[in-house]
Amino acid sequence: MSDKQIDFYFDFSSPYGYLAAELIEGLAERVGAEVTWRPFLLGAVFKEIGTQPLLDIPMKGPYAKCDIPREARYHGLAFVFPQSFPFSSVAAARAFFWVSAQDSAKAKQLAQALYRRAFAQGQEITSPHAVVEVGVSLGLDEAELTAALQDPAVKDRLRKEVEAAREVGVFGSPYFVYAGEPFWGVDHMVRLEEWITRGGW
Amino acid sequence: MSDKQIDFYFDFSSPYGYLAAELIEGLAERVGAEVTWRPFLLGAVFKEIGTQPLLDIPMKGPYAKCDIPREARYHGLAFVFPQSFPFSSVAAARAFFWVSAQDSAKAKQLAQALYRRAFAQGQEITSPHAVVEVGVSLGLDEAELTAALQDPAVKDRLRKEVEAAREVGVFGSPYFVYAGEPFWGVDHMVRLEEWITRGGW
Repeated sequence: MSDKQIDFYFDFSSPYGYLAAELIEGLAERVGAEVTWRPFLLGAVFKEIGTQPLLDIPMKGPYAKCDIPREARYHGLAFVFPQSFPFSSVAAARAFFWVSAQDSAKAKQLAQALYRRAFAQGQEITSPHAVVEVGVSLGLDEAELTAALQDPAVKDRLRKEVEAAREVGVFGSPYFVYAGEPFWGVDHMVRLEEWITRGGW
Repeated sequence: MSDKQIDFYFDFSSPYGYLAAELIEGLAERVGAEVTWRPFLLGAVFKEIGTQPLLDIPMKGPYAKCDIPREARYHGLAFVFPQSFPFSSVAAARAFFWVSAQDSAKAKQLAQALYRRAFAQGQEITSPHAVVEVGVSLGLDEAELTAALQDPAVKDRLRKEVEAAREVGVFGSPYFVYAGEPFWGVDHMVRLEEWITRGGW
């Protein structure tokens, strides 16, 4: 267990979150850190800071449509925008926390598989059906996972995680915290890595 | 005259714009490009995309207060927040375009001197008095520059530049365009440099 600990906050509907999910474990390995994956829901934050889904914003939306695929190509990652976007990521996040309570490595696998389904294959991950299908492909039990998505304890866990992210001040996806130091965006992953390596500046 | 041409859009009230202004000419030299400096006014854009000055935004504001000085330290640049922030950058932008029509190298010097006064020394650059003082320190004529700040032709030039930036889709500061390819933010200057070097990807 490393004493270097990165909190990785992301929303399953965030394309930049997908890119970060593909890159963060490599970064962590290079600096000898461990990553805690923390899906949350951006919707509530967007209301609080008075913004809206990225692609809907004038000028910023068209820029994102250029920048996200460009970042993906830069890193050699597949990328497509899902047909329906933005989308609800509640079921995906609940599935993550249910698995995470049993097996955190499996939960990371599930997160990456969900993200790839959405942003590499362009398929929906909003419906419980889609989320369960991805889980089953990783060996999870279909009936148990289906039940978990409506389990009050799982719902409550996600609510608490969303509130915890809000208290930390997480306002975007991806968002990283290392030893109290916040880094927002795929762009800032290079700073995060240097910060850990150099011990700050 | 290089055939590699970077348009550098910035608002004189933007702290990230200040950092970019300190870094862009070094970048351009490394890749053999020339930079056209294009001050504009973010206010109108903020209304259009429904946002507000950075530091006033819940959560995003506190993050910026951490990130901007951290970026400055990373690059070895002085940085302070001016006492009055945000501030109007109309006079600074007008002065820039008046000088630029005569001497583009001098206009860049003026831009850097104005930015340093605001974000390295923390002094105001909103009043005509302050802007003229900076100009005079660079050898500009006090009476001519004072008159230029109210010259209808100079006012009109700035209006046209703001409109041109809007048409290009510039929604933040700094914002760069190279051969039609947009790059937003200090964070993205590393991508801009790689893009020019590699000829895209």
